[in-house]
This record gives sequence, C-alpha cells and structure tokens, in this order.
Amino acid sequence: MTEPLLHGYFRSTASYRVRIALNLKGIRYADAIHHLRKGEQKAAAFRAINPQGLLPVLEVDGAVLTQSLAICEYLDETHPSPPLLPDEPVKRAHVRAFAQAIACDIHPVQNLKVLARLRAMGLDEEQVTGWARDVIADGLDACAALIGDATNPYCFGDAPTLADICLVPQLVNARRFGVDLRWPRLLAIEAACLELDAFRRARPENQIDTE
Amino acid sequence: MTEPLLHGYFRSTASYRVRIALNLKGIRYADAIHHLRKGEQKAAAFRAINPQGLLPVLEVDGAVLTQSLAICEYLDETHPSPPLLPDEPVKRAHVRAFAQAIACDIHPVQNLKVLARLRAMGLDEEQVTGWARDVIADGLDACAALIGDATNPYCFGDAPTLADICLVPQLVNARRFGVDLRWPRLLAIEAACLELDAFRRARPENQIDTE
Repeated sequence: MTEPLLHGYFRSTASYRVRIALNLKGIRYADAIHHLRKGEQKAAAFRAINPQGLLPVLEVDGAVLTQSLAICEYLDETHPSPPLLPDEPVKRAHVRAFAQAIACDIHPVQNLKVLARLRAMGLDEEQVTGWARDVIADGLDACAALIGDATNPYCFGDAPTLADICLVPQLVNARRFGVDLRWPRLLAIEAACLELDAFRRARPENQIDTE
Repeated sequence: MTEPLLHGYFRSTASYRVRIALNLKGIRYADAIHHLRKGEQKAAAFRAINPQGLLPVLEVDGAVLTQSLAICEYLDETHPSPPLLPDEPVKRAHVRAFAQAIACDIHPVQNLKVLARLRAMGLDEEQVTGWARDVIADGLDACAALIGDATNPYCFGDAPTLADICLVPQLVNARRFGVDLRWPRLLAIEAACLELDAFRRARPENQIDTE
C-alpha cells in the first residue's frame, strides 16, 4: 500500500473516525484539507473525486473510497490487525449496530448540511441548536442502552472497535451543542479511548488545520 | 438457525431492506408487526427489545439484532451464498459506500421521525414534503453519480448486492414524496431487481400488514 491520502477537515466527525482507524492500524497517511464551513467540499474539483461532496474520502492505491464506515471496514479487511470488529457474527452485528446508531441516526441529522437547511427554512439559531441537541441526546440515550452496564473499558470488550471509533467523535459534537452529558458509562469509555495514542493523535485539536 | 422473527412494518424502508436480504438468502422468517404511524415502536415492550425504538429488529437464535445494514452483514456472514458483497476489498467498499449514501445520508434525514420533528417546529406540510423531496433528490443524484454509466443490470455487476437492497426501498420513498425520477439508470436497476422473486415478495404491497 502506498501512503493513502485522506481528504478531511479537522472538525468533521466522520473524518475523525477514519483518522482513528488509520492510527489504530498504524497506517501513515497524508492530509488533503477541505474547509467545510467555507464549502470547499462542494467545489467541482472535489465533486469530481466524490460526487456526494462529502468528507471524508480516502485515496489509496488508485482507488477512491467514500463513507467513513465503509472506509473503516476496508481498512479492517486489508489490515486485519488489530481488528476493529470482533470475530463472532452476532458480536460483529452488535458493534456495527452501535456504530450505525451514531453514523446513521445521529450524525447525519445534526450535521452542518442539515442545520443549514433548517436555517434556510426560517428557523432561528436557538431552534437549530435545540434540534441538534435533541437529536444527539436521544441518540446517545439509545447508545448507552445498547451497551448496558458492563464494566469493560471500551464499548464492546477490552479493545476499541468501530463502536468506539464512532462514539468519541460524536461526543465532541455533543459538547459543541451544549448537550447535557448524562451518560457516565459513555464518558468513561471516551476517557479510556483518549488514553490511547491512536485516538489522541486523531483529535480535532491535533490536526494541521485546527483553528 | 431456528426461524428468525423480523420486527417490521410494511412501509418501513429499513425493514424492506432486511426482507430482501432474507429472501435473497432463502431464509424463512416470521413477522412481528409494529405500526409506525401509530407509534407502536415506541411502546415500552418494544423498547425493551430495541432501546432505539426503531425498526427493523431481527431476533435469531436468541440474539437481538438491530440496524438494517448490520443485520444484512450478519446474514451475509452466516449465510454466504449468494453473497451480498463482492469479494475484493475495494469493490466491497464501493458497494458499502453506496448503501451508506442511502442509509446514512438520505433515509434518516427524511424518515417519519425527522419529519415529525419538523412539523413540531412549526413547518407546514408543503415545507415538510419539500424537505423530504430535496433530501431524496440530492441523495439520489449522488447515488447515480457513484455508479456511473456502466450497463450491468444491477448497481455493481451482474447480481444484486447491498447497494440494490438499499436503492429499491429508497425509490419507494422517492415516489411517495413526489420526487422527479430523473435517473434512468437507477430506474433500470430497480426494474431488474423487481424481476427477482426475492425483491418482489419483499415489496410493501406484498406484506401481511399492507393497508
């Protein structure tokens, strides 16, 4: 594998997921920065790479990969160690379901694009922030229930998985919108993850484009 | 495997995906119906099964599986033939990315829950329908670009994959909201899929709870 190129943005939580996965796998990569708030992901040059106009994109060995979870699964299939999913099918399904509870049911409903749509429909800032806060809080309630009261350090067991890769970035957004962080178990998992160099190096504040 | 129980609803597009996957794999299953418009998925008894309060749920061999894409991947791992994903990692990533472009970026932003939230914030029916229409049209534009002009019968090749499993139900929603169906290639793929018994039996109008 030649050094992959990650098209991302420091504050993009989906890019943050892929940064963690690359770091966990020990894969060195180069950054291509696209400033989301300036709309650089909508430029024709970037749409020629990803017609969705969304981050992240991973260019690797001539292939263009989009969608953060699909990229993480690709990395897991091509670099099996350390694994991002358990071995057993039911456990894999539980990890993927937790990841999708964030990546399908929380993040796309509170991302910049949707909030811009709400503003365009005449909602004020308080309503827009309230929307994001409610979506995140409802979603994290479900996430907390999905993992239950087990005391293992990470979402599912003794090593981080795709579930933790989705949780930690989502908690950044929870704080940004002022969500009441009423999930001690999720916060304990976050703390355990952020002890790991792979998560720490991936944090928004540690990126070259951090503002 | 004992006969699985699918918690679903005829008009739930995420349930429709799992019905197709079960049929493609030749797995007989029983139905547990939860009427989404009556809010039956929010009942305490159902939340005890799935804390997210969302459909579908597949109960199989004592396990409770949630999130349609995670369930489809589980079925693919436990019943490899016929496969729902190609063999090669880059191709698998492309199929998953297409599926997620629908399951993450279209469907959750236009589902009943989000539209109810919009109404609760004071938007009128025309605005709510317009929202759903715009989200679906933008998303299907991207989907059409992702598969390009190839002439194979299905989204990715000569057999249906997870991509087709997501596309066909999403087109039902596109029609429901009056989206202008400007993607001849997507419609040709839909027609090819609906030639298959596995897709046809999974259609909303062929369910026991159809209204």
